[in-house]
Amino acid sequence: MTRTASEPHSPGAPAETDTIRVAVSTVIFTLRRLAGSDAVQVVLPLVRRTRDPHEGQWALPGGWLDATEGLDAAASRTLAETTGLAPSYLEQLYAFGAVDRSPTRVVSIVYWALLRADEITDGSVENVQWFDAAALPELAFDHNEIVGYALWRLRNKVGYSRIAHGLLADEFTLADLREVYEAILGRRLDPANFRRQVENSGTLIPTDRFRTGSHRPARLYRYNQDVELADRGPLDARH
Amino acid sequence: MTRTASEPHSPGAPAETDTIRVAVSTVIFTLRRLAGSDAVQVVLPLVRRTRDPHEGQWALPGGWLDATEGLDAAASRTLAETTGLAPSYLEQLYAFGAVDRSPTRVVSIVYWALLRADEITDGSVENVQWFDAAALPELAFDHNEIVGYALWRLRNKVGYSRIAHGLLADEFTLADLREVYEAILGRRLDPANFRRQVENSGTLIPTDRFRTGSHRPARLYRYNQDVELADRGPLDARH
Repeated sequence: MTRTASEPHSPGAPAETDTIRVAVSTVIFTLRRLAGSDAVQVVLPLVRRTRDPHEGQWALPGGWLDATEGLDAAASRTLAETTGLAPSYLEQLYAFGAVDRSPTRVVSIVYWALLRADEITDGSVENVQWFDAAALPELAFDHNEIVGYALWRLRNKVGYSRIAHGLLADEFTLADLREVYEAILGRRLDPANFRRQVENSGTLIPTDRFRTGSHRPARLYRYNQDVELADRGPLDARH
Repeated sequence: MTRTASEPHSPGAPAETDTIRVAVSTVIFTLRRLAGSDAVQVVLPLVRRTRDPHEGQWALPGGWLDATEGLDAAASRTLAETTGLAPSYLEQLYAFGAVDRSPTRVVSIVYWALLRADEITDGSVENVQWFDAAALPELAFDHNEIVGYALWRLRNKVGYSRIAHGLLADEFTLADLREVYEAILGRRLDPANFRRQVENSGTLIPTDRFRTGSHRPARLYRYNQDVELADRGPLDARH
């Protein structure tokens, strides 16, 4: 078999590529305590579209990639322009490029971020609203699918990384941590089992401080920065 | 603060986006035993460029995204066109879009794949050669950086998933499996510790079959499909 290598990056690209445009969108998760309830839910900000296609529908914050900026910079810029939010940590999630995802051909590079409650800049940004991730309306384009994928990644990642930290203050109680896991996984966890497993995992360091209030004092913990972010499975640091 | 939501996907995109083009490239890893050695190395196929920019340099197999095809289809097509390879599993790795990565503005959606030795179609494809991933020449564009990122993901993923399976036959000895880990991690592992940890992990099922040859017979294993691909960390399937 003899074939000639194709020529990406060459000046003579086929004309069809000229009709493809690149957009950047961001899924930002945070946790919100429901009023009058002890339940915590995962929420994200959406932007109401003011123009066709999908005028009036909710969509992920985003915008067009500018030819003079990198992908990360475009994610930060479009997020700030649409929501006023500036999360300290943005991670690329996935590129969505199905042919029929938009009336014109658009490849969207999607980012995701986690925000702690204290990072949310208050203020009413026009056309922006926070939604329960588990009960979204029908969104513009393939944005329901994108949020579903981001939630799947979040659920997976919470199992083998310190990602819950992105939603917590530096010091937290075991009940705080369990709430984060419960909100992300969408189910209740047994407190005693959770405590035992977290303590055995070596990922937390107990502090000398306690949170006091209407309940009995609860010890505050912080994350152990020495523990590897991802579990090494059958191989660990000893080998 | 009052801002207006930006308008991605709208017909009136800024003119700058017209100068951005989208390419697709693929990193394919497989293992190769060095002639006259018991060492195994991670190798990948590269394509020699026959045109500027970077004429004569080696680059990842790939090509331009066509306006009428999805990203996965483009990765499969360009890979087949350049190398003749058709891996059963291709996964999107990352989108690379630095402004200066090419003389013109190109966003590359990069895929990766693992091939077992028996999946490699033999045959001399013009301008294609396999390289040791640990000793690459200077590649075109940012392709050294891309391969480095793919290797990092491979090393991470081998720790918490069954990804080594993608490089092994259905049945394999513990020495085969250890070789895969050693090649990916780039260091020797203690055989006794490795055996103990793998046996304790519950990810392998021993068969009744043995491989015989010049060494003493070695038991063949297969992967336990019931074990979750990713470790759940402090939470496991019991809760």
